[in-house]
Amino acid sequence: MKQAIQSLLFVGMIGVTASAEAQQWEPLPAQPPIPADNPQTEQKVELGKVLFFDPRLSEHGTLSCNSCHNVMGSGDDNRPNSIGMHDARGGRSAPTVWNAAFQSAQFWDGRADSLEAQAKGPITNPIEMGMGSAEVVMERLKSIPGYLPLFKAAFPGSPDPINMDNLAKAIASYERTLITPDTPYDRYVKGDKSAFTEQQARGMQTFAELGCTACHSGPNFSGPSLQAGQGFFMKFPTFAGSKYDDQYDLLLDTGRHAVTKQESDRHLWRVPTLRNIALTAPYLHNGKVETLEEAVVVMAKTQLNKDVTPAQVKDVVAFLTSLGGSFPAQTMPRLPLTVGVSIVPAVDPHLKTTPLSH
Amino acid sequence: MKQAIQSLLFVGMIGVTASAEAQQWEPLPAQPPIPADNPQTEQKVELGKVLFFDPRLSEHGTLSCNSCHNVMGSGDDNRPNSIGMHDARGGRSAPTVWNAAFQSAQFWDGRADSLEAQAKGPITNPIEMGMGSAEVVMERLKSIPGYLPLFKAAFPGSPDPINMDNLAKAIASYERTLITPDTPYDRYVKGDKSAFTEQQARGMQTFAELGCTACHSGPNFSGPSLQAGQGFFMKFPTFAGSKYDDQYDLLLDTGRHAVTKQESDRHLWRVPTLRNIALTAPYLHNGKVETLEEAVVVMAKTQLNKDVTPAQVKDVVAFLTSLGGSFPAQTMPRLPLTVGVSIVPAVDPHLKTTPLSH
Repeated sequence: MKQAIQSLLFVGMIGVTASAEAQQWEPLPAQPPIPADNPQTEQKVELGKVLFFDPRLSEHGTLSCNSCHNVMGSGDDNRPNSIGMHDARGGRSAPTVWNAAFQSAQFWDGRADSLEAQAKGPITNPIEMGMGSAEVVMERLKSIPGYLPLFKAAFPGSPDPINMDNLAKAIASYERTLITPDTPYDRYVKGDKSAFTEQQARGMQTFAELGCTACHSGPNFSGPSLQAGQGFFMKFPTFAGSKYDDQYDLLLDTGRHAVTKQESDRHLWRVPTLRNIALTAPYLHNGKVETLEEAVVVMAKTQLNKDVTPAQVKDVVAFLTSLGGSFPAQTMPRLPLTVGVSIVPAVDPHLKTTPLSH
Repeated sequence: MKQAIQSLLFVGMIGVTASAEAQQWEPLPAQPPIPADNPQTEQKVELGKVLFFDPRLSEHGTLSCNSCHNVMGSGDDNRPNSIGMHDARGGRSAPTVWNAAFQSAQFWDGRADSLEAQAKGPITNPIEMGMGSAEVVMERLKSIPGYLPLFKAAFPGSPDPINMDNLAKAIASYERTLITPDTPYDRYVKGDKSAFTEQQARGMQTFAELGCTACHSGPNFSGPSLQAGQGFFMKFPTFAGSKYDDQYDLLLDTGRHAVTKQESDRHLWRVPTLRNIALTAPYLHNGKVETLEEAVVVMAKTQLNKDVTPAQVKDVVAFLTSLGGSFPAQTMPRLPLTVGVSIVPAVDPHLKTTPLSH
């Protein structure tokens, strides 16, 4: 317990402690928090899904939100870092979009405090979807006639509905449907004891006893609050001296500090959800930990200063596996298409041609 | 008519002529031809859909079949040429997968005579999905435990069901569901005269009178036969001397000749379907024609030696637009996931890193 409290003090949180005995285990709510200025509607969700899957939101028309946050899979891309336009990549690992609606901060450094604020980032980011500016995105969308009726239906009364704010609201609305509340864990804590194996029940106990719940708390295992803007961060690594400490490019990327420039935010990172964690390897903000077993060992040592036994690791992994699955069935969106002409840019400065294909 | 017959003689076809008056207009059958050794089953279609959408069938785990043949859109990528692994691209334009099941030859040069034979190509092609060899593909698939039950269900009785032939059979089975038989054109020729505008009816007449139907014949507008292996090819360009003749890299890419090495096959290309053609810009095998209007002008001049009027072009385009749409609703597949570890390769020789993202 001491270490867990110590970790919390690092980020100025007080009073939330994890007791293995008295641990409150909460199931995921059936719905995530909905902001007052963006109520869910069927039309917004449908538009958001179309936008999420439309590769024309990227410079070359090749990458959609789904390319790196694959909702047919684990909601990420199972890579250490994603591959963007021009074969570019960043230093951080794409977080899963599944249950992102329950995260109180978005991006690893929490620089967006809502899904709406987050959605605008990757589209214009030069090393992700590469559109450069909101103006370019809007020009692209407006060149596809079929988008206007979709935006009008989603935002009735808006005189010029195709704008970046509405795009973000629609994508966020769709993302709020990407939740997995009915896992073995949720069934177990609601009273269905048959939902767990013995090992999973043991792993849950170990998870609390080690102190993991100090940070990975709440129904989303991402901190005490599910409310957007309540951002819950943790220093990594908290305990120095383990063999893992210097593996994580700490000098290159200072996490939340890079956003706030506050010295106290150096190497603070958003506490990510553990839901579906077994499906989102590789691990940590930089994707440098290859397996979930190793992630448990690294976290226990660098955050809690504990050496876990192989048996403990196996039990905790079994428990974490219970936090995954139950993905809702989805229909594919139909992308609005242009007639007789493509609005995807044909030429780019990186053109390489090899003779044969197709 | 004279030019149409002449075109046909170029490729050694005889006897199939298009008369504007007596033109037989056929609706698309409700089902494409099914090969005797690969009957459709629900399990094969479902497995094929999963494979079609799985980016782990590419070297970096970033490109799926759907990346360049987007079934949520026009079945292609609306680019002159697709972008493959390592930012590579070929010289030919990705054909639509919609109604490919009705094409009698696959690839622009017809080097595959069935969907099954085609499906294996792009996965291993170094400038497309980049897997290199069937062995690498099978190793990848076998490292995802969830694939074995899917292959077993699709190929019961097969002792080692995860193999390249079964992969191809499953993808082909899924592709045989990607058909659009209920377009305005189909309703019109079945007797619903209200399915066409006056301009579309006039355009249909012009299409036949110009002689377009000499090549774009049959219910798929891709030649007289819908049977795989019956390959229907056309020389391009047939008539020399137009301003379009030297625009198409004829020396670089000799089409079917590159496959057969037969001099008579030089610059022969598969006749592509015109179904959904209004949605698959840019046009021709090299994607160098930007608009459907220009494609009509180019084809009329280089294949039929006719100068079409702007009014004729508009009418024909209106008719061609009637050949699109009516895409069936589809559910998203769920990709089988690995637990606790990613099988997507983390490192590649083209690694570039830029500090910030996510």
